[in-house]
Amino acid sequence: MSGDVGSLGVFEIARAVKRDSLVLMSASLALRNGALGAAADALWARRADIAAANERDLADGERNALPLPIMKRLLFDEKKLSDTLQGVRDLIALPDSIGRVRLERELDSDLLLRQVTCPIGVIGVIFESRPDALVQIASLCLKSGNCAILKGGSEARETNRILYEIIHGAGAAAGLPDNFLRLLESRAETSEMLGCHESIDLIIPRGSNAFVRYIMDHSDIPVMGHSDGICHIYADKAADVEKAVRIIRDSKVQYAAACNAVETVLVHEDIARELLPALQKELAAKGVQIRGDGRVIDILADAEPAIAPATEEDFATEYLDYIVSIKVVRDEEEAIAHINHYGSHHTDAIVTEDEAAAARFMSGVDSAGVYRNCSTRFADGFRYGLGAEVGISTGKLHARGPVGLDGLTTYKYLLSGNGNIVEDYAEGRRSFHFRDL
Amino acid sequence: MSGDVGSLGVFEIARAVKRDSLVLMSASLALRNGALGAAADALWARRADIAAANERDLADGERNALPLPIMKRLLFDEKKLSDTLQGVRDLIALPDSIGRVRLERELDSDLLLRQVTCPIGVIGVIFESRPDALVQIASLCLKSGNCAILKGGSEARETNRILYEIIHGAGAAAGLPDNFLRLLESRAETSEMLGCHESIDLIIPRGSNAFVRYIMDHSDIPVMGHSDGICHIYADKAADVEKAVRIIRDSKVQYAAACNAVETVLVHEDIARELLPALQKELAAKGVQIRGDGRVIDILADAEPAIAPATEEDFATEYLDYIVSIKVVRDEEEAIAHINHYGSHHTDAIVTEDEAAAARFMSGVDSAGVYRNCSTRFADGFRYGLGAEVGISTGKLHARGPVGLDGLTTYKYLLSGNGNIVEDYAEGRRSFHFRDL
Repeated sequence: MSGDVGSLGVFEIARAVKRDSLVLMSASLALRNGALGAAADALWARRADIAAANERDLADGERNALPLPIMKRLLFDEKKLSDTLQGVRDLIALPDSIGRVRLERELDSDLLLRQVTCPIGVIGVIFESRPDALVQIASLCLKSGNCAILKGGSEARETNRILYEIIHGAGAAAGLPDNFLRLLESRAETSEMLGCHESIDLIIPRGSNAFVRYIMDHSDIPVMGHSDGICHIYADKAADVEKAVRIIRDSKVQYAAACNAVETVLVHEDIARELLPALQKELAAKGVQIRGDGRVIDILADAEPAIAPATEEDFATEYLDYIVSIKVVRDEEEAIAHINHYGSHHTDAIVTEDEAAAARFMSGVDSAGVYRNCSTRFADGFRYGLGAEVGISTGKLHARGPVGLDGLTTYKYLLSGNGNIVEDYAEGRRSFHFRDL
Repeated sequence: MSGDVGSLGVFEIARAVKRDSLVLMSASLALRNGALGAAADALWARRADIAAANERDLADGERNALPLPIMKRLLFDEKKLSDTLQGVRDLIALPDSIGRVRLERELDSDLLLRQVTCPIGVIGVIFESRPDALVQIASLCLKSGNCAILKGGSEARETNRILYEIIHGAGAAAGLPDNFLRLLESRAETSEMLGCHESIDLIIPRGSNAFVRYIMDHSDIPVMGHSDGICHIYADKAADVEKAVRIIRDSKVQYAAACNAVETVLVHEDIARELLPALQKELAAKGVQIRGDGRVIDILADAEPAIAPATEEDFATEYLDYIVSIKVVRDEEEAIAHINHYGSHHTDAIVTEDEAAAARFMSGVDSAGVYRNCSTRFADGFRYGLGAEVGISTGKLHARGPVGLDGLTTYKYLLSGNGNIVEDYAEGRRSFHFRDL
């Protein structure tokens, strides 16, 4: 099959990708890593062409008066390419996530069960305007033996297209099946993709909550995504105040638009009078607006600017902005209950020097990430050492938190016998002895 | 909260169960195992009451002229109770599936990441007429720290009710939160349950494909279930003919109505003339009807009864009956392609003495179970030594194949620091060193 799929519909593309996924599934680590290395080399060799394509996207963006944050994400200069390629090199160095024996059990002397990790098959990823996402996602899928169908943001069309062509060309030349990677470009194609449940095993949408919800509602394909990122920090009565202020500041302002930024701070009543003034000062200096419950407003009565009241709705809101809601709680139990009720099961932290309080919090909070004495902003595949991430899952099934190679992996059970039949075991002529090796 | 939930709607019940799931999540293994032991003791002590309840269900079934297979599944006599309780004792002896550290990684000298297994939360299980399923499912959920909302078949209403009351009473007396287990009884309640996506984390429907599909289409809650069980056996050219016949017979007739029974046999052309007559003789003796492709009909021209032709539709059918379709294939590659195309990714086997052929098959077949030289009927949680199963998953995400304790488990990331903030790492004042412990 040729690399030109321009004339094919999405359904046919997805079918071809599915077929090739059965080939990629058995590709050796050397072949997959070799293709990744070749792709990285080719991307660097063609950095001038990539920069030129990116400039065309940026010029279009300017003509269309795209907001500055989107223009920033769209920019893919030599520095960003170089950082992205370092990520690919790091990924090559990671151990293989497939072919790992997770369980090896003798069911009987001549009947051996093994649970072995393997690729999922075909992953559809819909991502936003950052072109580096295309390189990361394609690399993660390839390293984990999965074929990928990518749909990038239309703002990055020119950049995405050249990145795709270079990676696809390098991979095919290295010996991968031709359809190990495909790129879709139009919104209409995204809709068609949602109907390809016979060919696509998993869809990962990256974008707003509403967008992820829309995808879930319009496809029979399993979806891995995250809803909100309503993250909390609870400052326990045994908190070190300096640490708490520093952690809350970082969690709020280091990148306020991120899903792992803190939105609500809960403060134990015993420490509120000491912590809140220091915290208010620090946040005000950074331009963060505080919305507080009645006790916060009381304690910070002299604050400048004045504290706005926090409503019930505030506690259920992902601001993604320089705003934080603060509530004083009676005890740790109330904090945990608040987080489990209002939170989005993303990442929540306790600041405390008390081991027992930390243990209770980490066991009782039902979130993908539960932290002690550090910033919620650490919730990220790179920072976890996963090499990269295709996204962060707030669902509880399959993968939770930052999703890297393991989240793109499933397993199968391999059973080897010597003519064994169930009748012999059902009728008591033979019996299982279950011995893990 | 009292054990009487008769006056509450399903939505309120689910909310109460969700609340208690946060308590059960932190329950010690000793408490969970103690409750399981107490439930098993109580069930045995009240075996006469259970038998009486079961007799009422059986009498109703007879009045309603239930088919014999359903009446058989409905029967829950002392022997079945005793077997079921042995299963509970085995489950108690299994190691804990929660609290296991799956990854422990130093991100920096004072920043430790751990990935620790934990319960999913609230599991909704809709199951068929076998009362032993209630005991198994309730036990698996409890052992794995999950609260469960069960809906059993209406034919088994009296038996299910008493089993539920005994297990619930024993668990609550042992110190579990009151809503660790709830039973729904009406079909209307099942529909309501499908809308409880804020309280129920996972639904496991056991039943026909159409039923599982219905559940998936009518709920926003993730569903773990299996579609068809179109299982294959491929007799390679290097197959031991005696083994092949024996394995195919067992896979077909040991329990033809099971999802792991074989539906299609693929025979390498080099061995077809030797294998097919022997296989036909064996299957005819067991009353199995063969539907063959042209070459099978040629080779078995003299067979009695005559071989019916297999259509395209046969290869996509789960007979669950004494029927098997047989096709002669050119080579192993054709067999693998046929299985990946027509199969349901449940369990497929090769019979061969050739190591290389076995390795290719096990790598190339995209199914939850891939077997060599043994019956497909081994695809079962008990036979895998998982203690029991809540079902078999043909999906690829989260859990695949028979689902036991591990399939009812998720994980969270715990991160412990000493005031660490992302700003320091983003601005190069500190750096990660990623060391797995």
